[in-house]
Amino acid sequence: MISTSTTVPATRRVLAAELPGLIGAQVTLQGWLHRRRGLKSVVFLVLRDRSGLAQAVFTGPGAMAAAARHPEETVLQVTGTVTGNPQAPGGAELTSPSVTALSGPAEPPPFDLYRPTVAASLPTVLDHAPVALRHPVLRAPHVISAASVAGFRAALDGLGFTEIHTPKIVASATESGAGVFAVDWFGDRAYLAQSPQFFKQAMVGVFERVYEVGPVFRAEPHDTARHLAQYTSLDAELGFVADHRDVMAVLRDVLAGMTDAVRRRAGDACALLGAEVPDVPERIPEIHFTRAQDLLAAHTGDDPRGEPDLAPAHERWLSEWALREHGSEFLFVTGYPMAKRPFYTHPDPASPAHSNSFDLLFRGLELVTGGQRLHRHEDYLAALAGRGEPPAPYTGYLATFRHGMPPHGGFAIGLERWTSRLIGAANIRTATLFPRDLHRLTP
Amino acid sequence: MISTSTTVPATRRVLAAELPGLIGAQVTLQGWLHRRRGLKSVVFLVLRDRSGLAQAVFTGPGAMAAAARHPEETVLQVTGTVTGNPQAPGGAELTSPSVTALSGPAEPPPFDLYRPTVAASLPTVLDHAPVALRHPVLRAPHVISAASVAGFRAALDGLGFTEIHTPKIVASATESGAGVFAVDWFGDRAYLAQSPQFFKQAMVGVFERVYEVGPVFRAEPHDTARHLAQYTSLDAELGFVADHRDVMAVLRDVLAGMTDAVRRRAGDACALLGAEVPDVPERIPEIHFTRAQDLLAAHTGDDPRGEPDLAPAHERWLSEWALREHGSEFLFVTGYPMAKRPFYTHPDPASPAHSNSFDLLFRGLELVTGGQRLHRHEDYLAALAGRGEPPAPYTGYLATFRHGMPPHGGFAIGLERWTSRLIGAANIRTATLFPRDLHRLTP
Repeated sequence: MISTSTTVPATRRVLAAELPGLIGAQVTLQGWLHRRRGLKSVVFLVLRDRSGLAQAVFTGPGAMAAAARHPEETVLQVTGTVTGNPQAPGGAELTSPSVTALSGPAEPPPFDLYRPTVAASLPTVLDHAPVALRHPVLRAPHVISAASVAGFRAALDGLGFTEIHTPKIVASATESGAGVFAVDWFGDRAYLAQSPQFFKQAMVGVFERVYEVGPVFRAEPHDTARHLAQYTSLDAELGFVADHRDVMAVLRDVLAGMTDAVRRRAGDACALLGAEVPDVPERIPEIHFTRAQDLLAAHTGDDPRGEPDLAPAHERWLSEWALREHGSEFLFVTGYPMAKRPFYTHPDPASPAHSNSFDLLFRGLELVTGGQRLHRHEDYLAALAGRGEPPAPYTGYLATFRHGMPPHGGFAIGLERWTSRLIGAANIRTATLFPRDLHRLTP
Repeated sequence: MISTSTTVPATRRVLAAELPGLIGAQVTLQGWLHRRRGLKSVVFLVLRDRSGLAQAVFTGPGAMAAAARHPEETVLQVTGTVTGNPQAPGGAELTSPSVTALSGPAEPPPFDLYRPTVAASLPTVLDHAPVALRHPVLRAPHVISAASVAGFRAALDGLGFTEIHTPKIVASATESGAGVFAVDWFGDRAYLAQSPQFFKQAMVGVFERVYEVGPVFRAEPHDTARHLAQYTSLDAELGFVADHRDVMAVLRDVLAGMTDAVRRRAGDACALLGAEVPDVPERIPEIHFTRAQDLLAAHTGDDPRGEPDLAPAHERWLSEWALREHGSEFLFVTGYPMAKRPFYTHPDPASPAHSNSFDLLFRGLELVTGGQRLHRHEDYLAALAGRGEPPAPYTGYLATFRHGMPPHGGFAIGLERWTSRLIGAANIRTATLFPRDLHRLTP
């Protein structure tokens, strides 16, 4: 029988999660000292690496003293023999270990990282993000985010989309809504882009189907649990659609791709956070805005008919209704009144006061907004005139539509909002590595 | 025998590239009218879609008049019978077609998009980017870019890296080098990030191995063919390295992943541009800075010994040397003098005036810069003191290193620079959808 110890040279680093498959081998672990526990005749060092935790057991006065010297969070290299032990994490630990420090002795973090949760307020955690995020529970949302983005891209790559990178600095603050940040552009005034909307539409004329994953900026003067001044927008736009339903079908496939990737690549992170990954139905249920209002009038104390938008309480009720009636955690609400949508929104030809647009509700909140856009130059001029807006600031944007553009539409998913909802976070900052807001510009 | 015409419903859109496999079928194409040619008894409409070109042949006075009505770049839907014709693009064309416009009649673009190349200066092309990029030759670099980024990510995903998204707005302009753009941050002054360097290093403490694909901003006052004010940086950083050679090994695999993806996903674009995708050797040759200088002194008219950096002509000579001596279009130059590298660069322990850093030369130009970074808090303090810089502006960055950081390093690839080199572009703007520079803030 070949000893497994011959297959892993002592100098090659193995990861904590590999130990159970290497019983009997002499191996080297490298990682952070997550926890040190000294008993009378034994010192346990628990190392943390990107795969998880592993324990090394030091006995004898010399080894124990060498192990006990290192403060928690010091980066260590530990070489020893992998030994089965049902009590150890993963059922294996290192015995007869020797230890070397790869960093200087770590200063204690402002909170203990080895406890099950970090006992500190969110502002304190955010102030110390580079260290706080080492805690497995605070790290997990970002593993889920990374998996989600991978799923987003894989789904769209499979559908013939092309990835683009568009400018984040623009000449005019033309998209209405949230405020913009001004930039000193070689002595002139420019602005940070609030979305890649105009660029992605123009690129439908080039690639037909495009997506972008990138930062967007909102000078949001509200200090809430839901708003960030910079977030990551997952944008898609596609041409040759019949109407918004073709866009919704792509979004459905994207959500299926994202949830599949989360299950496959971030299962441990979800388990750690108790996050349940939703099933994406083959066909996500949809309800028209006016029918949604009728339902709310009939079944809740409110009568929202005549209102141009849904209140948060109404979105929650509709989400519960979709779960109850259709067994779906997702619900498309279509046909929002044109008055509440951007000027580039395509109206419903059969009912022009309503739009060929949608919101996707997920677990009680709006997660995605999208729809069909106008594609004829004269329709843009009429839409702007109808809102009393001069076309001049949009000259560059509108030029695209002079030269032949197909019916098209798209959507944008806020990555941090998606992850927050998925893990049930009380604050969107939990799903942001280094949040930027009214009060926070560091670290 | 089953007719293929039953397998494709007439209403389903097919792509131009699919026609040769659908001989005999009744199909619908949708795309831009690339070229219209009217002869005495026939009108040809060449449609362009994301897959390529396809031709429809209109005969008879009524059909010819209907076809001849549409100006080029109008978006059309054409339904007809797929008929083999060796003279047609791809060997098949649509006969007995009917045509409907999906857009309004297009205004003529400022240059003909159907000619083999666009007969306009680069500034004119850039002014009209949304239309100009529809030209297959101007579109192709961006297909190559998209493939390259996909390859970058796939390679790193396979090596256990985690994707991150870091702030593009920062509190202080701490990275030396190019200028920074100032942002009005709710009445305070902030800056656009010149690189994710500090963030990616901090995230090595959390994920060990991270990458980011995102915009970086350089307030570059030079108007050259090589500089952009915003570009896409492909950043990677990894912990638990022995030295910079572990970083170089990852970069080698990343380049192999990028070139594989370009071959696989952008072969047509490369062929159109005559771009030769380089082979990435199993081991990219490397040369130490001092040996490179010795070679240059021995074999060129120059004697650069004592200079702290390589001149562009020297980089070209070394690239040619690597191709001649090692058959490689890539060459690592290692050991650059510490004086020319950023303060966080790790010195060579055996020769502390030189660094554990590298440049990667590709076809005569520096493509990538990277290296090992300092990882001990006290080394950072000493490095800053040695440069006469106070540590105060770096407090947040330095805090990471108080709490245990492993030996680590990384690199950054400028996406537009990579694509430019690959296609042999004279100007980096050819590889940028909507360039931003000293003189250009639109479209």
